[in-house]
Amino acid sequence: MAELVGNLLVGQSGGPTSAINASLSGVIQEAGRHECIEEIYGAANGILGVLNEDFIDINEQKAKTIEGLKYTPGAALGTCRYKINFAKNPEKAAQDMERVFEVFQAHNIRYFFYIGGNDSQDTANKIHEEAVRRGYELRVIGVPKTIDNDLPHTDNCPGYGSVTKYNATTVFEVGIDVASMATDEGFCSIIEVMGRSAGWIAAGTVLAKRGNPANPPHIILLPELPFEEDKFLAKVKEVVDAHKHCVVVVGEGIKYPNGEEVGADKSRLDSFGHPVLAGAAEKLKQIVQAKLETKTRTVQLGYAQRSAGHCASLTDSNNSFACGEAAVRAAIAGQSGQMVKLVREVHPNGSLRWSTGLQPLSEIANVEHLVPRDWISEDGFLPNEKFVEYAKPLVEGEVKYPTEGGLPKYVTLDPVRAEKKLGEPAAVPA
Amino acid sequence: MAELVGNLLVGQSGGPTSAINASLSGVIQEAGRHECIEEIYGAANGILGVLNEDFIDINEQKAKTIEGLKYTPGAALGTCRYKINFAKNPEKAAQDMERVFEVFQAHNIRYFFYIGGNDSQDTANKIHEEAVRRGYELRVIGVPKTIDNDLPHTDNCPGYGSVTKYNATTVFEVGIDVASMATDEGFCSIIEVMGRSAGWIAAGTVLAKRGNPANPPHIILLPELPFEEDKFLAKVKEVVDAHKHCVVVVGEGIKYPNGEEVGADKSRLDSFGHPVLAGAAEKLKQIVQAKLETKTRTVQLGYAQRSAGHCASLTDSNNSFACGEAAVRAAIAGQSGQMVKLVREVHPNGSLRWSTGLQPLSEIANVEHLVPRDWISEDGFLPNEKFVEYAKPLVEGEVKYPTEGGLPKYVTLDPVRAEKKLGEPAAVPA
Repeated sequence: MAELVGNLLVGQSGGPTSAINASLSGVIQEAGRHECIEEIYGAANGILGVLNEDFIDINEQKAKTIEGLKYTPGAALGTCRYKINFAKNPEKAAQDMERVFEVFQAHNIRYFFYIGGNDSQDTANKIHEEAVRRGYELRVIGVPKTIDNDLPHTDNCPGYGSVTKYNATTVFEVGIDVASMATDEGFCSIIEVMGRSAGWIAAGTVLAKRGNPANPPHIILLPELPFEEDKFLAKVKEVVDAHKHCVVVVGEGIKYPNGEEVGADKSRLDSFGHPVLAGAAEKLKQIVQAKLETKTRTVQLGYAQRSAGHCASLTDSNNSFACGEAAVRAAIAGQSGQMVKLVREVHPNGSLRWSTGLQPLSEIANVEHLVPRDWISEDGFLPNEKFVEYAKPLVEGEVKYPTEGGLPKYVTLDPVRAEKKLGEPAAVPA
Repeated sequence: MAELVGNLLVGQSGGPTSAINASLSGVIQEAGRHECIEEIYGAANGILGVLNEDFIDINEQKAKTIEGLKYTPGAALGTCRYKINFAKNPEKAAQDMERVFEVFQAHNIRYFFYIGGNDSQDTANKIHEEAVRRGYELRVIGVPKTIDNDLPHTDNCPGYGSVTKYNATTVFEVGIDVASMATDEGFCSIIEVMGRSAGWIAAGTVLAKRGNPANPPHIILLPELPFEEDKFLAKVKEVVDAHKHCVVVVGEGIKYPNGEEVGADKSRLDSFGHPVLAGAAEKLKQIVQAKLETKTRTVQLGYAQRSAGHCASLTDSNNSFACGEAAVRAAIAGQSGQMVKLVREVHPNGSLRWSTGLQPLSEIANVEHLVPRDWISEDGFLPNEKFVEYAKPLVEGEVKYPTEGGLPKYVTLDPVRAEKKLGEPAAVPA
């Protein structure tokens, strides 16, 4: 494979995680080791930064900033939800794609790395295919990222270990709090975590039990299984009767057997005529309080769970960094149209490590990896030992970060921009 | 003052905090230094443990467990919301008080320490007064504890520094996440924290700004000030126009000018006829989405904020421990009917420390300390520099804790009980 000399562009896409910047750091640090890579640019707000020719100049950043990305949450380059959508709007998509290659050509971009989840890997694949069609020499590698852990073929998704460490820690702590208040009156605590269709995030909180069935969380509701109100209430009652308190974790996207989301109450409209979206935890609270008359309080972690750099997993951060490095090495070696994946290697002595591999982007896009049914207890209320064995190593180790005035001190990129070479695009995306 | 020889009873009451066990550790460790204190007991679930003669034997605990209480959240002895309520039910209260002294007498309790907030200090005071009336030699000292920070006369309340450190860290991190997703569409994030009438907890998140007006949180809604929807919406729009995103922190108890809670929507009833309590953040989200058409997401931290031992303030933990020690020293010195308070001492060189003092319990009970109006900006949307100067030192330092499998490893007391000397009480409280 002939050496490809040119510039590198890296972008971040979709919802941030605690580890998305570790992957960025890996891409940048590995790129710095290869002479064939000349300029290193970061797309501001993902693909929007490509369309707007808005590049952050990485060579202008301090080395300690690039190193500090390893412990900094959020997406340091900025991110976006914009998708080049051939299915929905083929004309706009073709126009966008034209613009992407106009920008790539103007800046001699020959290496493109996209750090993101399912949609982002699809975008990366489309760009790879277009480059091949045009005969434009470009190496495109996807770097996995999603707290949802729903990408196929990879052992786990960078970001998942950290969200699991934070959520399991939180559920463990809330469990201690609630247990210490447990009196004969009984009490129920419901904690809502992210996960619209995949239950990996909710399932991960089982680690807070530490193998003791009596410990919280007592019930974990996964979006993979239909929510059956009667069985749920019976289980809550059983737990409260036994322990005077019950801690429930719910994935935000749980659905009734008819497919309707529990958190979306279509029967009620607000004063403006919109359906009231109280959320799954609030809805469950109403049900428990009304039917069991058990006092219930909720926690809804929202974005706090995916940005909790102060409680990130070192294993996850290291794996995320390694994925960034591996992406650059694969591209240098001539690969394109691939996503980096993590491969779990159990050594004969029982010790565990992860190596990286590659999987064609075409086999990633639009495939959703759910929690297998045989990793969940028969009654559906808890992940089982198979899941625990899988998830436990992912939360090992603490990411160290500096503090200032008692709060974390994270890094930010200097917003210095690469010089624009083109005019405004014909149509700037909204 | 003659030396009083006898046994010690300590209890924890009300909602737990990350630092309530540090105070317990201080009481126990100081008590161990005085020969006049013979047995050390912990009341299981606060005053309920007194009424039920249910005492945890502290002398049976390991020294490393007592030391580990310093970093362990929740109430290690168990807590309760039970109140000896003379106003509401004088007959029951008199019966309870009779039982308290029957139990104290049977176990020769001569030192009683109650770690708690406003209601608990009131209970401690009632017991002190009753002891005086009966001529029963007893030293009663209250140890302050509340994340709400609303006890009068003390510089701050043990627990407040830790909830503030965790909440400010969380708001800081969510702010980074949201800022990195900010595109021209605009976005609003609303984070709900505890505080029903006092806004100290919400106000504390201003530390996440680190003195930069552009940084999140952009708006903090305190229960002390009436919520005016139009002004709020205008402010959100102003912030989104300027920064493409807006982070709002709301104290759960904010009220409309007519006194109604924003989070309690009385206009809607659920299918069982109960009013729907969506919470302040959810209600604000509905308003922002409907009126400004700005996409909005919420976080509701609930009990996670008061149990977050993994992000506790060392300053707070040290002060909490010191309050426990000081309570025992005061009692040994002959004091009773007092609460320990923290006194801020600013040295001429600018350095800061806290000493402890005493305040009569009668001056604590049923007085609520709110955020002063002149510590809040004129427009009411942010605490000002006076508040920041007050709160900043309270979050300094990190409490270290051991981990196991990537999660915190906290201590639990051995549930070994002191032998009962009495029969069941005439009427066990429900």
